Parts: sequence; C-alpha cells; structure tokens
Amino acid sequence: MNMHNNIYTVQNMLKSKVVRFFAMLVILISISCVVLSSFKEFQPYGWLFQSFIHLASLLFLIEYVLRIYSAPALNPELPAYRSRLRYIFSFYGIVDFVAVIPFVMTYLYWDTETVHIIILPYVFIVFKLIRYSTAFQLILKVMKSVRSELLTAFTACLIIICFSAILVYFVEKGAQPEVFKNIGDSMWWAVITFTTVGYGDIYPVTPIGRILCAFISFVGIAMLAIPTGIISSAFIASMKDKLSKKD
Amino acid sequence: MNMHNNIYTVQNMLKSKVVRFFAMLVILISISCVVLSSFKEFQPYGWLFQSFIHLASLLFLIEYVLRIYSAPALNPELPAYRSRLRYIFSFYGIVDFVAVIPFVMTYLYWDTETVHIIILPYVFIVFKLIRYSTAFQLILKVMKSVRSELLTAFTACLIIICFSAILVYFVEKGAQPEVFKNIGDSMWWAVITFTTVGYGDIYPVTPIGRILCAFISFVGIAMLAIPTGIISSAFIASMKDKLSKKD
Amino acid sequence: MNMHNNIYTVQNMLKSKVVRFFAMLVILISISCVVLSSFKEFQPYGWLFQSFIHLASLLFLIEYVLRIYSAPALNPELPAYRSRLRYIFSFYGIVDFVAVIPFVMTYLYWDTETVHIIILPYVFIVFKLIRYSTAFQLILKVMKSVRSELLTAFTACLIIICFSAILVYFVEKGAQPEVFKNIGDSMWWAVITFTTVGYGDIYPVTPIGRILCAFISFVGIAMLAIPTGIISSAFIASMKDKLSKKD
Amino acid sequence: MNMHNNIYTVQNMLKSKVVRFFAMLVILISISCVVLSSFKEFQPYGWLFQSFIHLASLLFLIEYVLRIYSAPALNPELPAYRSRLRYIFSFYGIVDFVAVIPFVMTYLYWDTETVHIIILPYVFIVFKLIRYSTAFQLILKVMKSVRSELLTAFTACLIIICFSAILVYFVEKGAQPEVFKNIGDSMWWAVITFTTVGYGDIYPVTPIGRILCAFISFVGIAMLAIPTGIISSAFIASMKDKLSKKD
Repeated sequence: MNMHNNIYTVQNMLKSKVVRFFAMLVILISISCVVLSSFKEFQPYGWLFQSFIHLASLLFLIEYVLRIYSAPALNPELPAYRSRLRYIFSFYGIVDFVAVIPFVMTYLYWDTETVHIIILPYVFIVFKLIRYSTAFQLILKVMKSVRSELLTAFTACLIIICFSAILVYFVEKGAQPEVFKNIGDSMWWAVITFTTVGYGDIYPVTPIGRILCAFISFVGIAMLAIPTGIISSAFIASMKDKLSKKD
Repeated sequence: MNMHNNIYTVQNMLKSKVVRFFAMLVILISISCVVLSSFKEFQPYGWLFQSFIHLASLLFLIEYVLRIYSAPALNPELPAYRSRLRYIFSFYGIVDFVAVIPFVMTYLYWDTETVHIIILPYVFIVFKLIRYSTAFQLILKVMKSVRSELLTAFTACLIIICFSAILVYFVEKGAQPEVFKNIGDSMWWAVITFTTVGYGDIYPVTPIGRILCAFISFVGIAMLAIPTGIISSAFIASMKDKLSKKD
Repeated sequence: MNMHNNIYTVQNMLKSKVVRFFAMLVILISISCVVLSSFKEFQPYGWLFQSFIHLASLLFLIEYVLRIYSAPALNPELPAYRSRLRYIFSFYGIVDFVAVIPFVMTYLYWDTETVHIIILPYVFIVFKLIRYSTAFQLILKVMKSVRSELLTAFTACLIIICFSAILVYFVEKGAQPEVFKNIGDSMWWAVITFTTVGYGDIYPVTPIGRILCAFISFVGIAMLAIPTGIISSAFIASMKDKLSKKD
Repeated sequence: MNMHNNIYTVQNMLKSKVVRFFAMLVILISISCVVLSSFKEFQPYGWLFQSFIHLASLLFLIEYVLRIYSAPALNPELPAYRSRLRYIFSFYGIVDFVAVIPFVMTYLYWDTETVHIIILPYVFIVFKLIRYSTAFQLILKVMKSVRSELLTAFTACLIIICFSAILVYFVEKGAQPEVFKNIGDSMWWAVITFTTVGYGDIYPVTPIGRILCAFISFVGIAMLAIPTGIISSAFIASMKDKLSKKD
C-alpha cells in the first residue's frame, strides 16, 4: 500500500507544474551550453558547459528511472510490469530514453578525443522539448490528424523532384560536368528549387535546363499549395475546437 | 468464349493489388538504378544497373502488350479493335507507351557511345509512376477540376513575367551587358524572381532595375496567392468529399 | 443614319471573336519579335522583326482610330463628342493610347542609334494584352474588389521594410561599407529578404544584423500571409460566383 | 474650468484629421531625410536633412508634452496626475516617448563624430508611424487576436531550427570548418533555409548535411503554413466584421 502510494506521489510530482518548469529550464540551459561550447570565444569555459550538460543528463536519467518506477500509476488496472513495458515502448518512453542515451554513451566511450564529440550525443536532449513543449505537442497532434493527406502530397512532391532531377541531370551534364556530377547533386538542386530556397550553388545554364527549371519552380509552388492548404485548415479547425470547448 | 474469359482474367490480374505492388517495386528499383548509375563510385556495377533497367523495360513491354490484348474487357459493348484503339490513345495508354519507347529505342540505336545515353530514355519510366501512384492520381484529378482557374492564373503570371523581363532587359542591358545578354536571360531572371527562388546568378544592379524587381517580387507574391488559394481549397474540398463518402 | 449604322458595325466588329483572336495573335507575334530581336543570333533578321513590329503598331493605330470613331455606339444616349472623350480617358482608352505611342515616337525621333532603342517603346504593346486577355481582366477585377485591404497590407509591409532597412544599414555599415553603401542598398536588401527571394548579393554578416534579418524574415512571412489570404479568398469567392451564375 | 476646456481643446486638436495628416507628412519627410543623408551624393545637403530632422524631433517633443498635458481629457473620471501617468506608461505613450529620445540624446551627447551617428537615433521616428498609420494599427490588432496561436507556431519553429542547426553543425563542421564556424553560423543558416530566403552564403555540402537540409526545407514549408493559415483567416474574419458593421 505504501509503495502504491509512492508511485502515485511520484507520478503526480512528475506531472506537476514545478517539475515541468524546472525540466524546461534545464533543457534550455543544456541547449544553450551545447550552442555556446561551439564558439571559440567560450572554449575556456568548456568544462563548465560540459559539467552542466552532464548534470542535466544525470537528471534526465533519474527522471527516466522515476518514470519507469511510477508507470503503474498510469494504468492501475494492469499488472505493474506490463504498465512499465507499455511506458518504455510508448512514444514518450522512447523520447525519454533517447535523451538518456548520451549520458550512458559518454561513460562507455570514455576515451573521446575532442570536446565536440562528447557533446554531440547531447543534441538529442532537444528531443526532451517534445515532451515539455505544449506548442510542439499541439502541432504534432494536428499534423497526425492530416497524416494521410500530407503523405499524399509528399509522395507527389517526391515523384516530381525525382523526375526533374533525372531529366535536368542529363540536360546539364554536358554543360556543367563539375556542378551536376551525379543525380545526387541534381536531387539536391531539385529540392532546393522546389522549396523555393534557391541557394544558388547549383542551377541550370542551358536553355532547355532553364525551361525545365522554370517549369519545376511553378509546379513546386502549385504542389506546396497542397500541404499549405491542408495544414492551415487543420490548424484553424483545431483552434476553433479549442474555442468552442472553452464556451 | 475461352478467349473472352482470358481477356477478363488478364484485365483483373493487371488491376490486382499484387501486380500493382510488384509494378511499383520494379519502378522504384529502376529509378534507383538510373540514379545510382550516374555516380562515379558505382561505375563498376553499371552493367548490373543496366541489366535491371532492361529487364524492367521488358516487363513494361509485356504489360503494354497484355493491356492492349485485354483492352476489350474494359468496354465489352464495343467491338474488340475499337476498344483496343481507345486504350492506345487514352491518357494511360500513352503513359504506358512512353514507358515502352526506351526499350525499343535501345535496340534501334544499338551503337550508343556512353552508358548514360543508353539510360537516358529510361527516365520516362518515371511516367509509369503516374499510373501506379494513387497519390499522384488524386492530385492530377484535383488539378483537373480547377484547370480553367489555374490556366487563368498561369496566363496572368506569364504576361507579368514577359512584361517585366522585357522592361528589365532594356534597363539593365547598359550596366550588365554580359549578364543580361538577351531577353532569354531576362526571362530566366524574371521566372526565378517571380517564384521567389532567387538563385542569385542574375539580378538587377541599377536603381531603376532594382525598383522594377522589387515591384515584380511583390506582384509575384500576390499572383502566386491565386493558384495557392485555388489548389488549397480544391484539395480541401476533395478531402471533405472523401470523408463524407466514408460516413 | 448611315453613319450611325457604320459606328455600330465598327463597334461590333471590334468586339467580334475574329478581331479578338487576330489582335491576340498580332500581340503575341510582336512580343516574340521584341524578344527575338534581343538575341545576337537573330541580329541578321532584325529588319524582319522591326518591320513586323511597325506593322503591328500601325494596326493598333488603326484600331485606336476606329475605337474613337465608333465610341458613340457605346453610349448612344450621350452626344458623340462626349462619348469619344469618355472612351479616350477611360482605363482601356489609355491602354490603347499607350500601345500607340511607340509608333508615333519612332517617326518623331527618326534618327535613333541602335535597333534596341527603336524597339524599346514597343514594350508597351504588352499593355495591349490587358485588353485582350480575359484572364488578366478577371484578376484585375478581383484585385480591385480587395483594393483597400491590399493597400493596408502593402502599407504595413512598406513600414516594416523601411524600418528594418534603416536599422540594418546602421548595424552593417561598419562591417561591410562596400556592400551597404547607403540606405538605398539596404532597402534593396530588405525587399529581397522580405519577399523571401534572397539573391545573396547583399546580406548581413554581423551577429546583430543577422538577428535583425532573421526577425525580418519571420515578420515577412507573417505579413505576406495577409495578401495571400485576402487574394486567395477573393479569388475563390469570385470562382463560386461564376459557378452559381452558371447554375 | 478654463484650463479644463483647454485640455479638451488640445486633445481634440491632437485627434483632428489636419494634425494627423501633418504628423504623417513630417514623419515621411523625416524618414526620407534619414534615407537621403546616407547617400554620398547628398552629403553636401547633410545640414539641410539634419535641420529638418531636428525640427521634426522638436515638433514631436512638443506633441509629447501636449499629450501629457491633455491626458486628463481621456479619463475625466480619474484625478489628473493618474490620467497623465496612465498615458505615459500606455503603449502609445511609450511609442511617443521613444520618438522623443533622439532629440534629447543629441543635446546630451553633443560632441558626436559623424553625421550618421547623429542621425542613428532618429530611426525611431519610424515608431511614430505606428501611431498614425491606420493600416499598421489594424494589422497589430489582428495579430494580437491570434497571439497565442502565433506564439505556438513560433515556438515550434524555434525548436526545429534549434535542433537542425545543432545537428547540421556537427555534420558539416568537418567539411567546412571556415563556413560553419560555430552553432551561431549554423543557426543563421537554419533560419535563412527555414524561411526559404536562401542567400547562398552558407549551405551544407556533405550528403548527410544535404539530406538534413532538404528535410528542414520541407518541414519549414509545413511549419510556415501554420502562421500563414492563422493570420490569413484572422485577417479575413476581421475584414468580414468591418463589412458587416458597415451594413
């Protein structure tokens, strides 16, 4: 009975606003540490950033253990071990696990060479934000509700990108063999054109290549209207739902 | 009677999920082969990629022949030869034919020089995706339903691009004779600006040219809002239709 | 009575499908001539292009005279001279006049130097497209119906561009005196960033400049959502109107 | 009683159309002066621009004093000093104060070095536009009404930018140590890619980096659909409200 109570206390604690706020703070400082440790100017303070990231990672490890321990409180009707397994293999269970990996990895591969390699795995602490940011959760939920439509649009985009990449490669290869080295480069060009980013590191120069590119740019805009429309309307609908529930 | 049954069997087979899945697989591997054969690193395996593409093309030829043979099953009320002609000149008949051309071409022009020229016609295997990708079919259907509106928007875009290309050419010719060599270059610039891709290989430098360009950028955004709106709303409407049919 | 009948005959002729189609053809060939005459490869045929453009311009002059002559048929209740004046100062009257100017100008300034300067005024033949392209007319009508909303959005865009251009100029002047020479350059940068074209000829390099630029990019996207939304919804509404009228 | 009347007269005067128009004119000329004084060609007229900006600033100081003086007319039920404090700490009170700072600053730091440093603070005169531009006020109001939704979308954008910036930094650092110097550079790249501006000063070159970048471009487009949809629909709703009030 006592242990049962403990589990509920821990679970409630983990869900409390104070823990949420504290976790968010630790995540943000951790990310700042990863960012700052990449600057040459802050190299002398590298040990400080590393220490904090280690500490944060340890806290996430403790959180992960507590979450496994208190998992039965989520499904009181199930036997404890099944409730724990369910948590471990749930979406958030995996997110929590990924954020713990770096801590474990650092101790397994102790003889790392540079400070950057040590910090690299901590990138996944960003995943922790998925748990604690309500904004991100809302957007994930909305995206999930229009999953099949987005997949449709994305598949069509991929087909067009594929087709234009192959075609432009054969058209431009002769004029720019150093730029369009293979269809990999051509794919890169197609994606950057299709999304209208247009870095300008790679672009067609032959008349036929340019006409194809102009065509793809227009098709790109037409295609991208589809996910834009779907996501916009799904998000607006979700906002209206929230408002009507408030009334 | 027996032959009649054969036709129906073949037609049903071609429409079956297994054939659909297998065709999709062959298309995707073919495209991968075309892509990979362009990489210098995979040159030694060129013969492997080519063999597979040849095989895939042969399969599509067989499919095409079977489709012509079984076409009467689609229109049982018509005489067989008319049903076959109808298929051959239908949209999908042409798509299937285009995907067959490369196989025929390779044997007509046997003495090709490089591996790339052999592979070039196989680009059109991508067209086969139009038949087998339901995503692409849905999008084509939606686009078709707003064809006249899109044509309107596209015509207006063309007029603006034309006008600004000619104007900017005369404005910039004096300052950058090597960049704005002719109105063809200017058109290229206009399209890349209008679609907000902006590679940066060609842009105005004179004050008047820049003002014109700023104007075109804004007009471009306003213009592109039209197809965006049309396609978005058509796609959302089509999604709603699908949902209401499910109910 | 006879003259009165003439006027109506001419006006009906000008509105007929044949004239419309023929005018469209002449405009498109004229534009092609202007475009082609800018290519070095087609220089030897320059006299041909010029001849056609002169001919086209003469036809537009005749059309303009006929339109003035037959203007009373448009407003039978008004006295003839007032009806003609009304046409001359109407939107389409001005469009027709602008397309006639080049012909007149060529004969006034006979001693032109290069072929390009002769052709320059013919750019305005593109204006003729506004009269004959129904697509363009529809879009102009839709834009007109949301004029005040677009003006609002455009004014707000201008304020933000102005503000960011001035601020970034003072921030970047020290680091890139050759690139951000004056606020004119800075304005050019702001417009190209705001519209997400991003040529890459001019961009901030200082940390503060980059933060400002990132901020402007996001604001730009938010701002451009406004005309996108307005135009999209106006265009969709206009499409629905057309459909409901058909029913 | 007399003074009380004065206050109302001043307040009405400040709200009148003539003052509004005159203030707008002074703001626009001031901004033009700031812009023009940055051009080398207009250096000789620098004293003229400065004089006008000083005069404009003096006028805004007088306006600010008058606004404080007449503030009790806005809240007749409150004691005069509280009404004045309320104005000073209101949104528009702060805007008015910011526009006054430069005038005061110039006299405090009299021994400035170059003409540009003198003009720099006058940038904030642009803030004055917020008060007098109805377009800007409308847009601010609309944005305010969807504040929480925009914040949600913006937070999600920030998380994705953060994550991709850190990841791409570690991927590209080896190949381009001079371009991706630290995560600050990487953040700059992520923002410019996410917003589809794409200057082309910094972009990934390794295959993994390019795949990540392609992924981010697509996610960027999906993410930016959210604020686009929210703002569009909020603005259209606000337009409909205005129309239905007119009826």
